[in-house]
Amino acid sequence: MSRPWIPIAVVALLLIGPSRSPAAGAESADSGALFGFGTDSASSQRELEARFDAELRVDNLREWMERLSARPHHVGSPYGHQNALFLAELFRSWGYDTEIEEYQVLFPTPLVRELEMVAPTRFTATLAEPVLEEDATSGQTSEQLPSYNAYSIDGDVTAELVYVNYGVPDDYEELARRGIDVEGKIVLARYGGSWRGIKPKVAAEHGALACILFSDPRDDGYSAGDTYPEGGYRPRLGVQRGSVADMPLFPGDPLTPFVGATASAVRLSLEEAPTLTKIPVLPISYGDAAPLLEAIGGPMAPASWRGSLPSTYHLGPGPAMVHVRLEFDWQQVTAYNVIARLEGAELPDQWIIRGNHHDAWVNGATDPVSGMVALMEEARVVGKLARDGHRPRRTIIYAAWDAEEPGLLGSTEWVEEHAEVLLEKAVAYINSDSNSQGFLNAGGSHTLQRLVNEAAADVLDPRTGLGVATRNRARRVLGSTGKQKEALAGDAIRLYPLGSGSDYTPFLQHLGIASLNLGFSGEGHYGQYHSIYDSFDHYTRFMDPGFEYGLALAKVAGRVVLRLANADVVPFEFGTLADNLATYVDEVGELADTMREEAETREALLAGGVFAAAANPGETWLPPEALEPVPHLNFAPLLNAMETVTTSAAELAAALQLDGDEAAGAAVGARLDEMLFRSERALTRAEGLPVRPWFVHYVYAPGFYTGYGVKTLPAIREAIEQRDWALAEAEITNTAAVLDALREQIDAAAALLVE
Amino acid sequence: MSRPWIPIAVVALLLIGPSRSPAAGAESADSGALFGFGTDSASSQRELEARFDAELRVDNLREWMERLSARPHHVGSPYGHQNALFLAELFRSWGYDTEIEEYQVLFPTPLVRELEMVAPTRFTATLAEPVLEEDATSGQTSEQLPSYNAYSIDGDVTAELVYVNYGVPDDYEELARRGIDVEGKIVLARYGGSWRGIKPKVAAEHGALACILFSDPRDDGYSAGDTYPEGGYRPRLGVQRGSVADMPLFPGDPLTPFVGATASAVRLSLEEAPTLTKIPVLPISYGDAAPLLEAIGGPMAPASWRGSLPSTYHLGPGPAMVHVRLEFDWQQVTAYNVIARLEGAELPDQWIIRGNHHDAWVNGATDPVSGMVALMEEARVVGKLARDGHRPRRTIIYAAWDAEEPGLLGSTEWVEEHAEVLLEKAVAYINSDSNSQGFLNAGGSHTLQRLVNEAAADVLDPRTGLGVATRNRARRVLGSTGKQKEALAGDAIRLYPLGSGSDYTPFLQHLGIASLNLGFSGEGHYGQYHSIYDSFDHYTRFMDPGFEYGLALAKVAGRVVLRLANADVVPFEFGTLADNLATYVDEVGELADTMREEAETREALLAGGVFAAAANPGETWLPPEALEPVPHLNFAPLLNAMETVTTSAAELAAALQLDGDEAAGAAVGARLDEMLFRSERALTRAEGLPVRPWFVHYVYAPGFYTGYGVKTLPAIREAIEQRDWALAEAEITNTAAVLDALREQIDAAAALLVE
Repeated sequence: MSRPWIPIAVVALLLIGPSRSPAAGAESADSGALFGFGTDSASSQRELEARFDAELRVDNLREWMERLSARPHHVGSPYGHQNALFLAELFRSWGYDTEIEEYQVLFPTPLVRELEMVAPTRFTATLAEPVLEEDATSGQTSEQLPSYNAYSIDGDVTAELVYVNYGVPDDYEELARRGIDVEGKIVLARYGGSWRGIKPKVAAEHGALACILFSDPRDDGYSAGDTYPEGGYRPRLGVQRGSVADMPLFPGDPLTPFVGATASAVRLSLEEAPTLTKIPVLPISYGDAAPLLEAIGGPMAPASWRGSLPSTYHLGPGPAMVHVRLEFDWQQVTAYNVIARLEGAELPDQWIIRGNHHDAWVNGATDPVSGMVALMEEARVVGKLARDGHRPRRTIIYAAWDAEEPGLLGSTEWVEEHAEVLLEKAVAYINSDSNSQGFLNAGGSHTLQRLVNEAAADVLDPRTGLGVATRNRARRVLGSTGKQKEALAGDAIRLYPLGSGSDYTPFLQHLGIASLNLGFSGEGHYGQYHSIYDSFDHYTRFMDPGFEYGLALAKVAGRVVLRLANADVVPFEFGTLADNLATYVDEVGELADTMREEAETREALLAGGVFAAAANPGETWLPPEALEPVPHLNFAPLLNAMETVTTSAAELAAALQLDGDEAAGAAVGARLDEMLFRSERALTRAEGLPVRPWFVHYVYAPGFYTGYGVKTLPAIREAIEQRDWALAEAEITNTAAVLDALREQIDAAAALLVE
Repeated sequence: MSRPWIPIAVVALLLIGPSRSPAAGAESADSGALFGFGTDSASSQRELEARFDAELRVDNLREWMERLSARPHHVGSPYGHQNALFLAELFRSWGYDTEIEEYQVLFPTPLVRELEMVAPTRFTATLAEPVLEEDATSGQTSEQLPSYNAYSIDGDVTAELVYVNYGVPDDYEELARRGIDVEGKIVLARYGGSWRGIKPKVAAEHGALACILFSDPRDDGYSAGDTYPEGGYRPRLGVQRGSVADMPLFPGDPLTPFVGATASAVRLSLEEAPTLTKIPVLPISYGDAAPLLEAIGGPMAPASWRGSLPSTYHLGPGPAMVHVRLEFDWQQVTAYNVIARLEGAELPDQWIIRGNHHDAWVNGATDPVSGMVALMEEARVVGKLARDGHRPRRTIIYAAWDAEEPGLLGSTEWVEEHAEVLLEKAVAYINSDSNSQGFLNAGGSHTLQRLVNEAAADVLDPRTGLGVATRNRARRVLGSTGKQKEALAGDAIRLYPLGSGSDYTPFLQHLGIASLNLGFSGEGHYGQYHSIYDSFDHYTRFMDPGFEYGLALAKVAGRVVLRLANADVVPFEFGTLADNLATYVDEVGELADTMREEAETREALLAGGVFAAAANPGETWLPPEALEPVPHLNFAPLLNAMETVTTSAAELAAALQLDGDEAAGAAVGARLDEMLFRSERALTRAEGLPVRPWFVHYVYAPGFYTGYGVKTLPAIREAIEQRDWALAEAEITNTAAVLDALREQIDAAAALLVE
């Protein structure tokens, strides 16, 4: 009557033999073929990688983490500067041509932080994370940044509290249905559900006077696991620091959009700076949030808004009334980017850039040092191999960014300053950041998915001895409810599309440089995020005690970097990109359809009085607003452009035939490479996205109302979401033009091969 | 491209004009037609109902609730006896021929209740609910039953604790995957997810030594709403009492299955009584549970197992070790059923039985008095109308059952004693129990769905002025994700199939008497369940302060009773039954298919090593057991029988044509009535269900492993669930035979009409 979802034979293939992705295939596993390499060069490359692996030393990671996280090292701190100098010295010692590039960036730090409840009872928030005997660096109070949100404006406000759940736009619709308006109130929002900077932005749009953020124990406290120091999760008074600048508008120094924040750069005044918050914002612990929440009255919060604090979650407004006072030192500090270059032997003007930030909120063992030490060991061995006669064909640049935490400042200013040369020479940017035990989590440009799969297939998970790709696929299979079969098809690793949240953003979304973000995660106990407890002690107990996953990251990223650097033809692949693009094209069409149905259904339900009839007459429960009808949009230009991309991608693949015995393209050399890696530039438009011209990528962008969360085909998708139908039509045309430009680039590459 | 789910015109119909269900239709709304009545008799009936409504007095409900809930009145208590006498006297005063029928039933009450944690720290559980100033009856400690679970065996056990979530079979599979066995341990289970009696049963099957139940604040404590006395939800030390007898085996007195527990009945010994628990069981508050849960170590509980206590939920076993000691007085007490009869004027041997229990766990204002007082006012007015010359055509019997709380003892013993006459004469049984503000919640035999819809269409929701059926439909529409259109089709009220949990069970499931369970719910604040706080004070603040929904219940149930009593032909309808049966037939087929796919998928995943590859190597996470393959079962006999039922139901409907101007069937009188109402008997088999012969109904039964939760077509469904394929095949045949018997009964009724 029915068929099983997964033919047994297919699954059985999964874990057999040396762990290789099906993309590499049984044949290539035997032959050692590598995408982008001819037979001989693949063989040399594999030998090189064997040496690379053999040289890696796990003890280096431990030693460097201990050194780098020994003291607080936020941007502008003395120890942050010392770390930059230390890093530069090491890179030099490994044979890199190393410079420290400096920027003068706005970095406010707190002068006054006060939060007190003034009614119905009095309570003064602690706003301090206790020193723990079990955590050696937690007592470095004189050097620690206090808990705060960077780029909150100054303020002194007293008003009633309203609990707004995650504080995203949908939450305000729920409040409106309960007759609750935050105009003139202070909102209490929990972390999660969106990037934190969205919460004060949306609160201000709704007229709130201030925004208090707290970590609900449901999300990363005692409900998630044992709290620090018994376990790795957030203790009662732990606080998540973080930037609340309006990063979806532009990241980097708030005073120097589009240009590097050099000493001489023309700067906006503070008043002009559009990414500063509109209202004061302060993060607090759940220990400090509990009395506030308990004092809020009014209607019950909806079931999904209730967290794990041991009281009833109400919405307000009031009777809880709080006074919040914030003042900041609006100083400029120096950010120190460490840039280490290894000139390519054959194609010095093709750059592979590999970066990780070095600044932290406090000691930052996990964030960012865990990724940094993996990068360092990778760089050390790449340098050593070069000195041993294996200099890469293309140039490799290792970067240690400063000032990522306040908003990707180090990387953004560098990219802005060097935009012209990067547009010309950058092949790809490979980022990492926090790393822990778990699964390889890889996001990025889909032209690089095949490369990532081949690299991951050759690296073993340190604790199971299974292939990293195998574990990745297994997790995807188990996570696919009722779609196991679908989950088995194709590559083991599917790159998630990049939104924002780390230093790939300026490369990918401001310049159109193909980018990757690589890291292991999922099996660490991660409740120390942006607190003083993100320490060496925490990391070595709860994240990756043996630094084995740090080493695994070095192996995966090292392969990606070395293959990009040494390939006969840069290993960009367009079939996967086309598949993903087609999915996004389908999605935006379905989005419009779904919204149309939703508007029609709501209209019908309103006309029928259904909301009123189902409402509890003892509570306020207003019918939702009617939705403007959704017109049918002309998706034809987009669909047509998409078809041609798919066809051209297949034609190029046929022309390349790179993964067999011959590297057909090798002969045409650098010109072909440029055609291929500049394809990512074709996905941008110089005008940028509506409202935010800094973001020029038309396929991947952080959401204007999600922050880190990605919006694919963002111009169309957000126009539809915001019900701007005329804009949506225009952006369908613009996006179709972008796909046409991509197709032209692909065709031009193919044409080179048949010349 | 897509169509809206709901044509606006359809929804707009919803709330227009006097609220009538679409089943009644615009025509009947105008004409006043009533299913089962000819034109003239429908008109008289409507006049009678108008008088009925006019006579109802809300103050009676309040006064009687205050009287009945004034003191604790569990079975065997002095006040329970006084309540029975009080009720009998009232019924007599209203003109009913009233008797108190007595049974001697086993009702253990606690002598010793001790629970202490002996490691890693010491803690002695309170096991007491505090007296509250705001609750006038909470201080009647000398008469209150302490918190306990009835029919737990005696025990004195010390062992390590394991947290087992809801303690249902699936939960033990999760534990097994984490390498945790409860053999020799004490389980800590939270209330919810199944009827409470399932938890110790399943725990004992897995070798546990004792079972402790607690109310998680997530479910009915502070997460659900403000706690008593500020709000209606369970306070820190509130405890849910309740029976833990193995009711899915048989309800009623544990010592006298199948026979009435009269003084002379032959009784099982305690040792022989199969429905007593196998291990000691004790319910506790979340205040008492918190220290235990906090002391449990071992792996983290799965995310969905974590409740709202402010600590990390671990599984154990240990290091928490508890000592539990329970001793009960295994006494027999007298249960007093009040049976009030109003002889039918024309068809005295056709009985409409309407019942509600009168015993409580403590003061029981909501459970059961809220339903009882509605029944009383209904009975008072029915009696008055009879004295005023409107004696019903058929006999009406009002019953106030004792000893429902320990396991439906009063009703079950009465049904067992009077089985023979009931099989002959009972037309239908209409039950109620707890009642509060909210929506009409109606379950029962689907032959009566049309009757319920017509009755509800004529009653207004007291707070909105909308029709009760209209509100019901509105809630169903909003609750139907993506299926709004489907939810709009057909009757406003869909009877849920009955499992167990109140006194309809012996009528419906032991004798095959068509039954209904009626009550309003959903807008009260119900966290006092089975605690000392289920009081008049609580009810009049948080459940139905104005007793308006009590009155609405009297109006709905009164109409159902009076229409059943006065109809020209009993208003049983088979089209709806056939529709529902067809759904259940589809479901059991799909169940087998789903299980087959599940077994095949699991086999494939096991063979591929997928579970192992996805598991965190730092934790125990065993692959699940392989599942025995599911053979294809021969559903043909069931499908064929189902077809004929559907056809016959349509033919009977055509023959009856009762809802127009003529009551075609009225002429053939009592013979036709009997054919119709005995159709429910046709749904039973004398042999009963596998393993539990007391339950004879082959369409509706409480689940062997869900308790209150219904299993439709239970013989087939549970055989499949328990992977007994031979039994499943046999029960397909048996169930098909039952459907054939139903079809014969329908055909015989139709044949009467065309004689």
